[in-house]
Amino acid sequence: MATTITAVDVHDVRFPTAEAGDGSDSINRGDYSATYVELQTSSGVVGSGLTFTNGRGNELTCGAVRALSHHLVGLSLEGLDQVAFFRSLTADPQVRWLGPEKGVIHMAAGAMVNAVWDLRARLAGKPMWRFLSEMDTDELVNSVDFRHISDAITPDEARSILDKGRDGYGERLALLQDQGFPSYTTSVGWLGYPDEKVRDLTRAAYAEGWRAMKMKVGGEIDDDVRRARLIRSEIGPDALLMMDANQIWDVDEAIANMERLAEADPYWIEEPTHADDVLGHARIASALASRGIRVATGEVAANRVIFKQLLQAEAIRVCQIDACRVAGVNEVLSILLMAAKFGVPVCPHSGGVGLCEYVQHLAIFDFLRVGTSLDGRMVEYVDHLHEHFVDPVSVRGGRYLLPTAPGYSVAMKPSSVAEFSFPEGPAWR
Amino acid sequence: MATTITAVDVHDVRFPTAEAGDGSDSINRGDYSATYVELQTSSGVVGSGLTFTNGRGNELTCGAVRALSHHLVGLSLEGLDQVAFFRSLTADPQVRWLGPEKGVIHMAAGAMVNAVWDLRARLAGKPMWRFLSEMDTDELVNSVDFRHISDAITPDEARSILDKGRDGYGERLALLQDQGFPSYTTSVGWLGYPDEKVRDLTRAAYAEGWRAMKMKVGGEIDDDVRRARLIRSEIGPDALLMMDANQIWDVDEAIANMERLAEADPYWIEEPTHADDVLGHARIASALASRGIRVATGEVAANRVIFKQLLQAEAIRVCQIDACRVAGVNEVLSILLMAAKFGVPVCPHSGGVGLCEYVQHLAIFDFLRVGTSLDGRMVEYVDHLHEHFVDPVSVRGGRYLLPTAPGYSVAMKPSSVAEFSFPEGPAWR
Repeated sequence: MATTITAVDVHDVRFPTAEAGDGSDSINRGDYSATYVELQTSSGVVGSGLTFTNGRGNELTCGAVRALSHHLVGLSLEGLDQVAFFRSLTADPQVRWLGPEKGVIHMAAGAMVNAVWDLRARLAGKPMWRFLSEMDTDELVNSVDFRHISDAITPDEARSILDKGRDGYGERLALLQDQGFPSYTTSVGWLGYPDEKVRDLTRAAYAEGWRAMKMKVGGEIDDDVRRARLIRSEIGPDALLMMDANQIWDVDEAIANMERLAEADPYWIEEPTHADDVLGHARIASALASRGIRVATGEVAANRVIFKQLLQAEAIRVCQIDACRVAGVNEVLSILLMAAKFGVPVCPHSGGVGLCEYVQHLAIFDFLRVGTSLDGRMVEYVDHLHEHFVDPVSVRGGRYLLPTAPGYSVAMKPSSVAEFSFPEGPAWR
Repeated sequence: MATTITAVDVHDVRFPTAEAGDGSDSINRGDYSATYVELQTSSGVVGSGLTFTNGRGNELTCGAVRALSHHLVGLSLEGLDQVAFFRSLTADPQVRWLGPEKGVIHMAAGAMVNAVWDLRARLAGKPMWRFLSEMDTDELVNSVDFRHISDAITPDEARSILDKGRDGYGERLALLQDQGFPSYTTSVGWLGYPDEKVRDLTRAAYAEGWRAMKMKVGGEIDDDVRRARLIRSEIGPDALLMMDANQIWDVDEAIANMERLAEADPYWIEEPTHADDVLGHARIASALASRGIRVATGEVAANRVIFKQLLQAEAIRVCQIDACRVAGVNEVLSILLMAAKFGVPVCPHSGGVGLCEYVQHLAIFDFLRVGTSLDGRMVEYVDHLHEHFVDPVSVRGGRYLLPTAPGYSVAMKPSSVAEFSFPEGPAWR
């Protein structure tokens, strides 16, 4: 019997992280939060999705879920036209004006789209990476909305990528089951941490097996240089050091500052300038190429149209998809396919609330069916807030182990939802 | 004595326009609405601002105003640091994550920034165009946040543009006082109107003196061609016919469709594809240049960083600022200055709720101090909903007459606010 969605529940969940300096960078400082969506269904299986926010304003994404929820209530999963479903949430003829396809409404759509996919994977009894990886090529292609990206990728090109992704599938799966998915840690160098804490965390991470670490930059440049030297001296010349400016710099400033930071041999500079600045990223990428510094971005790229241009303009050499900034699995699919076509490795953005849980599935699927390589691929890892999830990530020796439970891994524990619901939960009273 | 803001009131105002097909285009269909902000102050003068929305979801921009209002309550206008003020609303370290600088939160910031400028102009006893046009160059330059646009325009370049704008100021002002500001009408060709209504409206507009008219395209291409022929046959070869696709097309589709529509000699094609697609607009502009068709966009361009790129990439030959999609007067200033530097004429987007009232001031200021030319400049005019404003626009023979009342002209009549407040107003019960 077909499963029908009977209700859309949304929870404003906030964790008081700001005080500790966790998650602090040059631009953002707040309480890690989630707009947490639960789909009630006729079959009793619950679909879970969330979008990550930064504290104040989480009520807006919750409100946007409510404004869009009539598109899901009553929806039957049987024979669902994926593009029509996707557009019902991303191109509502009234709500679209508030974007289009960006910010509050698009993030809400992301939580909702993902909840539907979580539901589908649960009903199929498969973890999301397997649900996607075993899907027919045509069903995957039909899940992509090619509107506004057809100048970069066609359905036929997508089909060809996904069909080729069947070759060697078994070997790649065996490799992941044996070794897990490569990862890097961002827990060592938040901007709010004093030097001693950075040194201690770097040593501990190295001892745990991490050979790729990310630090925040964008404070006083002399401080950035000092911290970069400190971390590089701890990890030696061979480990990778990534830097993340969280958009604070102007274009010329980014180039000048990275020329100074080049002494610490950064592997990439992430978000060197404003997230919307495709041409600016392209100029920075071109200026830093001779120093071997890659430009990475994507966690705040609003939608597939921004990713399309970043790829067309050769502005990025690392494509940092986010699972819920864009409108969920359908839109991520389109970005993975474009990245594969343009030959740019995907290293998902993670951290926040539930982002590690989400993106492990996407990275695994990308390796198994789309990008089909581990070269330059790493999933970000941040050791925050995993205890609130029913099926949290499992990371050992710097690698993500394959999830085995059905679904998309972002179902939250009812006790955590109750404790941290804002403003009525005990944590906020 | 300095004026201090004591409270931020916000009203969810919606007009039931959807039913009549007014405002219908290839993408948007809804009830024209406004998030209407009133600033209460210690001096008793009220500052008014609004952002325009499309019905459902107006509660989200209202919610965003509330989420940001603590930045205004208690604010004194005396010696206000304009960039710090602007960033308090556009770069709140928690709320910024929900954008950044785009969509719901940025539109809310636009309404609030504009309310503060309305208040300042009222306190100075000047209509906004005069308040801006008579302002010292340094004060204008200090009102611009150059972060993320310094690769396109520097404070010195802005200063030079504004200083040059003093030459011939008196003559330009006299010209406007004598003739008003050139305009075009969009009331003739909404997509929801049948052919006969289009013909009647076109004839009536021509008889009223309009020599520039805009039609919506992006339906079936054969329908678009038929309607374009119809309008062109009514207005003769010399009047201007503009076309607006409201983002419905992909890049190659836009080029192909405009090659068919070229027979009607369109002056510009507006929003040929997705609002975020700078590179796509550039490709379309280049493909259509030989046919003399300009690319115009901006009403949904999220912020100054998108405008910067549209100008850098030579993607537009008509810069369509919006008064409240971006974060109000401060951000519009930065866009006017970039457009002047790049030599692209500004033709503000208008219509909606209160947009004509707003943008007349910006176009007049642009002519008097920034762009200093009327060549290719026109303000859009739509004859909807002006009756709800205390100081509505006055348009005669296709030209806007100069506003004379102090402020930014978007103060709404209390009776209209009461009647159309959603959901409790009598119009919605």
